Amino acid sequence: MANTFGRLFRVTTWGESHGGGVGVVVDGCPPRLDLTEEDIQPDLDRRRPAQSKIVSSRKESDRVQILSGTFEGKTLGTPISMWVRNEDARPEAYSEMATKFRPSHADYTYQAKFGIRNWQGGGRTSARETIGRVAAGAIAKKILRERNGVEVLAYVQQVQRIVASVDSETVKLKDVEANIVRCPDPVAADKMIRLIERARKAGDTVGGIVVGVARGAPTGWGEPVFDRLEADLAKAMLSLPASKGFDIGSGFDGILLTGTQHNDPFRSKGGKVYTPTNRSGGIQGGISNGQTIYFRVAFKPVATVMIEQETVDVNFKNTILKARGRHDPCVLPRAVPMVEAMTALVLVDHALRHRAQCE
Amino acid sequence: MANTFGRLFRVTTWGESHGGGVGVVVDGCPPRLDLTEEDIQPDLDRRRPAQSKIVSSRKESDRVQILSGTFEGKTLGTPISMWVRNEDARPEAYSEMATKFRPSHADYTYQAKFGIRNWQGGGRTSARETIGRVAAGAIAKKILRERNGVEVLAYVQQVQRIVASVDSETVKLKDVEANIVRCPDPVAADKMIRLIERARKAGDTVGGIVVGVARGAPTGWGEPVFDRLEADLAKAMLSLPASKGFDIGSGFDGILLTGTQHNDPFRSKGGKVYTPTNRSGGIQGGISNGQTIYFRVAFKPVATVMIEQETVDVNFKNTILKARGRHDPCVLPRAVPMVEAMTALVLVDHALRHRAQCE
Amino acid sequence: MANTFGRLFRVTTWGESHGGGVGVVVDGCPPRLDLTEEDIQPDLDRRRPAQSKIVSSRKESDRVQILSGTFEGKTLGTPISMWVRNEDARPEAYSEMATKFRPSHADYTYQAKFGIRNWQGGGRTSARETIGRVAAGAIAKKILRERNGVEVLAYVQQVQRIVASVDSETVKLKDVEANIVRCPDPVAADKMIRLIERARKAGDTVGGIVVGVARGAPTGWGEPVFDRLEADLAKAMLSLPASKGFDIGSGFDGILLTGTQHNDPFRSKGGKVYTPTNRSGGIQGGISNGQTIYFRVAFKPVATVMIEQETVDVNFKNTILKARGRHDPCVLPRAVPMVEAMTALVLVDHALRHRAQCE
Amino acid sequence: MANTFGRLFRVTTWGESHGGGVGVVVDGCPPRLDLTEEDIQPDLDRRRPAQSKIVSSRKESDRVQILSGTFEGKTLGTPISMWVRNEDARPEAYSEMATKFRPSHADYTYQAKFGIRNWQGGGRTSARETIGRVAAGAIAKKILRERNGVEVLAYVQQVQRIVASVDSETVKLKDVEANIVRCPDPVAADKMIRLIERARKAGDTVGGIVVGVARGAPTGWGEPVFDRLEADLAKAMLSLPASKGFDIGSGFDGILLTGTQHNDPFRSKGGKVYTPTNRSGGIQGGISNGQTIYFRVAFKPVATVMIEQETVDVNFKNTILKARGRHDPCVLPRAVPMVEAMTALVLVDHALRHRAQCE
Repeated sequence: MANTFGRLFRVTTWGESHGGGVGVVVDGCPPRLDLTEEDIQPDLDRRRPAQSKIVSSRKESDRVQILSGTFEGKTLGTPISMWVRNEDARPEAYSEMATKFRPSHADYTYQAKFGIRNWQGGGRTSARETIGRVAAGAIAKKILRERNGVEVLAYVQQVQRIVASVDSETVKLKDVEANIVRCPDPVAADKMIRLIERARKAGDTVGGIVVGVARGAPTGWGEPVFDRLEADLAKAMLSLPASKGFDIGSGFDGILLTGTQHNDPFRSKGGKVYTPTNRSGGIQGGISNGQTIYFRVAFKPVATVMIEQETVDVNFKNTILKARGRHDPCVLPRAVPMVEAMTALVLVDHALRHRAQCE
Repeated sequence: MANTFGRLFRVTTWGESHGGGVGVVVDGCPPRLDLTEEDIQPDLDRRRPAQSKIVSSRKESDRVQILSGTFEGKTLGTPISMWVRNEDARPEAYSEMATKFRPSHADYTYQAKFGIRNWQGGGRTSARETIGRVAAGAIAKKILRERNGVEVLAYVQQVQRIVASVDSETVKLKDVEANIVRCPDPVAADKMIRLIERARKAGDTVGGIVVGVARGAPTGWGEPVFDRLEADLAKAMLSLPASKGFDIGSGFDGILLTGTQHNDPFRSKGGKVYTPTNRSGGIQGGISNGQTIYFRVAFKPVATVMIEQETVDVNFKNTILKARGRHDPCVLPRAVPMVEAMTALVLVDHALRHRAQCE
Repeated sequence: MANTFGRLFRVTTWGESHGGGVGVVVDGCPPRLDLTEEDIQPDLDRRRPAQSKIVSSRKESDRVQILSGTFEGKTLGTPISMWVRNEDARPEAYSEMATKFRPSHADYTYQAKFGIRNWQGGGRTSARETIGRVAAGAIAKKILRERNGVEVLAYVQQVQRIVASVDSETVKLKDVEANIVRCPDPVAADKMIRLIERARKAGDTVGGIVVGVARGAPTGWGEPVFDRLEADLAKAMLSLPASKGFDIGSGFDGILLTGTQHNDPFRSKGGKVYTPTNRSGGIQGGISNGQTIYFRVAFKPVATVMIEQETVDVNFKNTILKARGRHDPCVLPRAVPMVEAMTALVLVDHALRHRAQCE
Repeated sequence: MANTFGRLFRVTTWGESHGGGVGVVVDGCPPRLDLTEEDIQPDLDRRRPAQSKIVSSRKESDRVQILSGTFEGKTLGTPISMWVRNEDARPEAYSEMATKFRPSHADYTYQAKFGIRNWQGGGRTSARETIGRVAAGAIAKKILRERNGVEVLAYVQQVQRIVASVDSETVKLKDVEANIVRCPDPVAADKMIRLIERARKAGDTVGGIVVGVARGAPTGWGEPVFDRLEADLAKAMLSLPASKGFDIGSGFDGILLTGTQHNDPFRSKGGKVYTPTNRSGGIQGGISNGQTIYFRVAFKPVATVMIEQETVDVNFKNTILKARGRHDPCVLPRAVPMVEAMTALVLVDHALRHRAQCE
């Protein structure tokens, strides 16, 4: 198990779907930052299911409590412990999971690795695990915003075959939050919502793409050769449940261009260097170049479907499983705050690392 | 700077394009493994430029020397230091790089981050940096092969629009090595070679996709929630020069399917669990499930083109640059051993981590 | 701030003296270990003040709650989060600390480092911080006992000038727990208790030495060159509040001997190698040699005295401070479970590390 | 094996006594520092044996070569690889060590841990291993001196029963280097030299104490709770060959005082806070307080004696060993640059860590 992320801004998450709750310890946060639960709760609310007709119906208030690390509303520089209690524990809804492995879930691999698993609601593999990430990410976003002038956001760009048209340079958070699918292209958003509703009715699920964006990052963040900024972003994104791919800037599409077409020429204006194009995605040689950082994350259709599937039981006998309980036809809207959180965690960590060696 | 990779099998690389050489220290290697330079050199030879009409012409023998960590042909468990001397130093070929930033290279970002850079041949950002990775990866591949029965290989799947047809389950190393483009589909390989030759003549470059494969990995490798096996693979791949994207299993294409279509049903046969399909790419919940691990890595067309480009100089004045010196029209054939090396480094590290906690 | 200890058995503590509580997250614990609060609470009770006439009178029940990481009484391999609520919060007892720096405490250095501090009860520098360590150490001791046959214990060997006579090879936990000063030499213990009572009445404090012992460790634990077993033990001990020194085996006294007198000859008996003497303290070349590991930890007289002292206030004006509130004349009895905990954390971590590379 | 030290200023050493050489990679060094071999060589010369009548006679020039990480005499921010070739390889002098374990050496534990060892000259356990540390430490000392105004030095305070009288606040490097035993008290130095000569003639060895000093460190370095500055210093010192103990400030002697006697009162003068006494050793609550940091390190009499000793052979048969080859009657003079190096490595690392979070 590896439940700590980051080198200097270190985030340790804990908790299973069922049990005392889920939480996170943030170590290495700069001192004297204004911080209360009010800074954290909004992102947890965005992450929370049961918000709309297209997402899962788990009933949780997900109220965060800061247990340590602040004093009179300011961070102390000591570890910040945050806790969200589990409320909607319905282990009976998962009783069949005690004896059967859900296809394309982690039941089988956890059992094989650990020789034991908490089958209630997926245990540690539940999406509730991301609560700690989102809570920590809210702090990271605040630091980036207040101390570095960096804005982090994400949005849904594609659901199955429906592709939105969005400009990462200018899109605003309020456009993202303008609809329940968190796609800032209203026309595409409508289509996506209808598609997800159809999937929900069919008991099926759909996947897609979330775009992550960071604007205003200075030149210089990133630690070659192994902790290139895009490498740490890739790891952060692929550590999210259901994610299957990552690309930055021109990404997989960039391979259709030649080098001459692909290169971003440098230009200077008023003593400031910039690139009129940004196929690099804001990172060159593993280090931010001052342009907007943007990348895509592919999320598969989530594995919990309300349709009978072939599988094996814990005795390795072939059997049939029909999932019961919560059905979340599309994880993408909730993945948006997760992508933002992981982006912010990577950037804050690199901001501190850059300061340590180079400033 | 972050030049160490891995938690238990720790690899520290060093060296610039011009200077005393490049090398690597491998710490944490299991003791009593047979190891001599003969185990390392073949992969370095595969990585080396100047091998064919389609790749760069730097003249280096790249002979590796093991300086420590072995005794009478066996590993001691102590750090293994390996060194390759630089030979073909032609700093004069790079004199223009002293004053101008090459577009989509790391010149500008290194200068901005560190306030200094070795402009000779790209310094630390040269592809020579990967020599240390490939040398360490050769040890990792040997351990995986001999101790875990795991085979790691990679191949070129796509160059620009030319897509090969290859079965990751059965492709063999000799098929990969059968042609200079390292594509095991001979028909596609021919087309790729012609395309690269055209690019070379035009002074331009092309990119594409390398597929990485690991066969025979047991169930249980991978450390959720942050060091999921695919997360560490993603980081490893995005830490390679010129890489822009990563996806595993069905990846970006998987988003076109519904959950029901995408899930890999479990089946049991002779007491052994398997999945007849493998859209998961051999990893579920961040942990290997015993099926073949496969993933794609997108490499952009490399930035060094022999064509005039707009850029700025070190005084931030707009100018024109025409690269001289070596021209490598397609990095993909040389990226193959790099992808193998990084894959093996990730897997060995996870094998040791899994053993520590769970075995 | 650095609140994580260990490489593979990773312990992250959090919490201040006043606030939501104190706690710990244990990551990397092997799965399928029987574990409930009953395994943890006894060591917390040993650590807790208010137990006798010679120790501080804070009133806390210090009931531990396991919030995650276990299922049906067994560890899952996922992070184990443990929490102890703060109860006896009396911020008013510390109001003078808001404006004056206590001599030889951390008030001044925390304020200087962080520009802010929680002055209530010492905040993060309170001995309550060690609750998380002791809770995690209880798990580590259990693993060592059940899986490795290793017994860890500690005892008070010296208080000021009173030195006990104890044989580390044979001393038993019940002898340690036989008296309130945790010194297994009853004659010395009586004198120590009287000395501490005198100090308490005088409003003063006394220091001394705790010996840590690990019996039954196999040959092979320890990771040269930097993570020698004694190096990690030294760090662990010097990370405890009020500790000022560490030595292992013959330690500081060994310098009076010549090499010939000091060396431990090897002997063989029944195919087993041992050393009839053990001036090495069970560790040679940084690796355990199968003999009993023993070391000394010096604890200064704690800084909180009930006597007027010269100091400065937060405006750097000279002033006088007379501490109020709790007075703990001797930290040694409570330091015993802390030394045990840190010893066990080091050993478990090294057991896992050794397994990973060498087994 | 753990051959990397430090979190941000990361030092990885490699090499055995016999083989290609010994070396070090320094990662995380700030860029634009003037650095050539001339900055490193003097400390290697101080560390080198064969300098006087009282130390071992290995004939090595120990010339350091910087292989990477600098450009035109300045650091690049990239890894600095340094290498010292082995010259005086006399494996035949060690042939008996192939079959017999030297008492109180690491032969037995290395064999037990790794199942293999390089018995030539002690392999990785040779004091030559410290060459990499001293080379890296020379860089660290330079950074501390030039960027932080911190002076690091060490001296021999005690050899067996001969105790020097030295004031850590004022002692100068030239006083340390004034005699071959590196004791700045000339009267004690004379006695020490005579004692060591007698030990040499007797084929025996003597141990003693080295004091480490850092003057000018600002307030604020140190990372509680686990990486307290004294905890990292303790680990650093106990990672040195032959060290058996560490204490800081009043250390083991401080336990004879009461709290009232032991506390360092704060005083203010000209707006600056200081402590007229310094029993804290410059560190309070794990963080530097602006006073001089000083500590003691106990070194045992080294294990190689020219006198017959009982031991076992590799078949676990009882036998007799008489060492041949080099005899170093007292490691202390050479330990002085090692203590300085490790002190500087700890301090630079903490300077960077403090900057990252708090500045």
